Amino acid sequence: MSAAFARLWAEIAPIGREDNGGYLRYALSEPELRLRDWFRDQADRRDMTVTEDGNGNLFAWWGTPWAPGTVLTGSHFDSVPHGGGYDGPLGIVSAFLAVDLLRERGVTPARPIGVAAFVEEEGGRFGVPCLGSRLMTGAIDPDRAAALRDRDGVTFGEALGARPAGASSLLASRVAAVVELHIEQGRALEVPVGVASAIWPHGRWRMDFTGDGDHAGTTRMIDRHDPMLTFAHTVLAADREARLAGAHATIGRVSVEPNATNAIPSLVRGWLDARAADTPTMERLVEAVVKQAVERAGQDGTQVSVEPESVSPEVAFDTSLAGRLSALLGGAPILPTGAGHDAGVLSAHVPTAMLFVRNPTGVSHAPAEHASDEDCGAGVEALATVLAELT
Amino acid sequence: MSAAFARLWAEIAPIGREDNGGYLRYALSEPELRLRDWFRDQADRRDMTVTEDGNGNLFAWWGTPWAPGTVLTGSHFDSVPHGGGYDGPLGIVSAFLAVDLLRERGVTPARPIGVAAFVEEEGGRFGVPCLGSRLMTGAIDPDRAAALRDRDGVTFGEALGARPAGASSLLASRVAAVVELHIEQGRALEVPVGVASAIWPHGRWRMDFTGDGDHAGTTRMIDRHDPMLTFAHTVLAADREARLAGAHATIGRVSVEPNATNAIPSLVRGWLDARAADTPTMERLVEAVVKQAVERAGQDGTQVSVEPESVSPEVAFDTSLAGRLSALLGGAPILPTGAGHDAGVLSAHVPTAMLFVRNPTGVSHAPAEHASDEDCGAGVEALATVLAELT
Repeated sequence: MSAAFARLWAEIAPIGREDNGGYLRYALSEPELRLRDWFRDQADRRDMTVTEDGNGNLFAWWGTPWAPGTVLTGSHFDSVPHGGGYDGPLGIVSAFLAVDLLRERGVTPARPIGVAAFVEEEGGRFGVPCLGSRLMTGAIDPDRAAALRDRDGVTFGEALGARPAGASSLLASRVAAVVELHIEQGRALEVPVGVASAIWPHGRWRMDFTGDGDHAGTTRMIDRHDPMLTFAHTVLAADREARLAGAHATIGRVSVEPNATNAIPSLVRGWLDARAADTPTMERLVEAVVKQAVERAGQDGTQVSVEPESVSPEVAFDTSLAGRLSALLGGAPILPTGAGHDAGVLSAHVPTAMLFVRNPTGVSHAPAEHASDEDCGAGVEALATVLAELT
Repeated sequence: MSAAFARLWAEIAPIGREDNGGYLRYALSEPELRLRDWFRDQADRRDMTVTEDGNGNLFAWWGTPWAPGTVLTGSHFDSVPHGGGYDGPLGIVSAFLAVDLLRERGVTPARPIGVAAFVEEEGGRFGVPCLGSRLMTGAIDPDRAAALRDRDGVTFGEALGARPAGASSLLASRVAAVVELHIEQGRALEVPVGVASAIWPHGRWRMDFTGDGDHAGTTRMIDRHDPMLTFAHTVLAADREARLAGAHATIGRVSVEPNATNAIPSLVRGWLDARAADTPTMERLVEAVVKQAVERAGQDGTQVSVEPESVSPEVAFDTSLAGRLSALLGGAPILPTGAGHDAGVLSAHVPTAMLFVRNPTGVSHAPAEHASDEDCGAGVEALATVLAELT
């Protein structure tokens, strides 16, 4: 199976790849649209019907689309900017190969299998992660989603070419289970395949630090109200508080106005990404960071405003399903993750599980993200086993 | 004169203006090209010949271009991003009005007056401030200047449409004096017009903080090598060291890769702007900041590299010329500035002076930058008086 994996993987590996091996596959951008064409072509080759849900999500069907007892698998194509190639596409490629494997084995599922490609899972273009699955489940208002803008001012509605359709009743009424296969994103998995127990609660808070834009050369230090200082203090506070709490906090995205070498900024906008094993810990962490930001703003003569952009509670995947899959896979380890996934959004509505494929370096969201062909092949075998069991 | 000033000023005020009153007038961009057209039109209206020097600098002439004894005045059109409208254009508008005033008074200068519009004074587009005057004086290699890129990857050579001509022998052989009028950029001037004594030494250092890009959700804090932390520590160190040294340090421009909310950055690039009353103080300041950055990088497991992009020594304007102009203007105050100017670059080659117009709030490089029509009118009168004296 590792050879079959390597062959199919090679078809999409060049799409959106940059010189350093990283990927630019923003949702509904040219590379991601090419991957969607590739998806349709793969479905055609397998006599699988493709349906769309009006939210930007695609589904390739083995069996009657949305017939009762449907099992959904798949993942997403979009990447974080300059991210790795496995996060997302591995789940889609593995799903098509699992279909092949079941057919080779003469398995005829009694229920339909739908291979999904969810749109904008990373939130890398429009800012809200799991946008496609949130729309499908009604977790975000279609008008709000339509109005989300990318860095160039293009809205999600414009990129989609329509107002999103929003919540679908098919999910609760027709879907028996969801299984998303994904590369593991830490170094917690020491065998090729594992099963997810939970997703840490996580969220993104936009922090606007405002002050007085002025000339960097002529403004005396004591006359300044420089929001970059407040921002810098907050970055260090977030790191310190996360370490104390045994949680994760990151400020990895920044935008500055006017962003000129010889000008004191008038605005520094930073996005705080915070995650923890439980919601109260995450909330205390964010509170502590905001408190220190506000205190420092008082010293700097600046202002801070904080806006939650997306906050997801802890996801505990269906315990009995996870246990069943672990047993089916010969006692595969069951482990939590700090990363958000469409499966986490869907799990509030349908019994949902995730399979993880080993990540030897633990690197993710960066060009060095990698899984071996052997482990990916083992992932396909595991997914086929699970799909056969569930259908 | 304040009414005449207000009328002419109103012609250019809308060009490149944003909703909040700030300006986007990058060198050789559409708004700056419109200002250059306006410049040619103003010259035509006054029967002044316009010449170009092949470096992007324009000159409008009363008298024979570059005849011996030439007195240059004028300033620049380009702004910092979202900057004020007075920094630069005030010197050009005032120069045309000073010509009008001398003509109304029947003055016929014995030597030519050249009104200059220097290109890319702010370095806001191509990164090197005073690019036009540096090229003209040979302070920057034309090939290096041609290769400078803006944020979109366009080179200065491409924007100019040619390889810059580089150093001109006319400056040293034909120019008797340079007088640049400029809005004051602090709150140091308490009367309408002053005379510059010196420009603080200043420079820009690009600091690249590199670490390991990774997933913000899944990477344990102790496994991280996050360059944002090193950057943040350096921002606070620069502020602290500048206060201790009685100098100015600013990090107002930042770029981050991949700049995603859910990714630990692989690169944070910050530009340090440092200025002080003397070069040794500035150098000690930068050394102290770099030392603390490197120490913190050792803790964070990140790397720091520092590249000086432009470093300008102290400029002491011609003392006797400054004294003469101060006396001529009824004892106008003589004061230094922390801001760089084309006049500072030219002063190494030609006797040079600057006139400052009062800035009541001291704000500059920001939308609130402002001088009153009355003070600007007084600036025109002062410039006319000075030009009459020097020609």
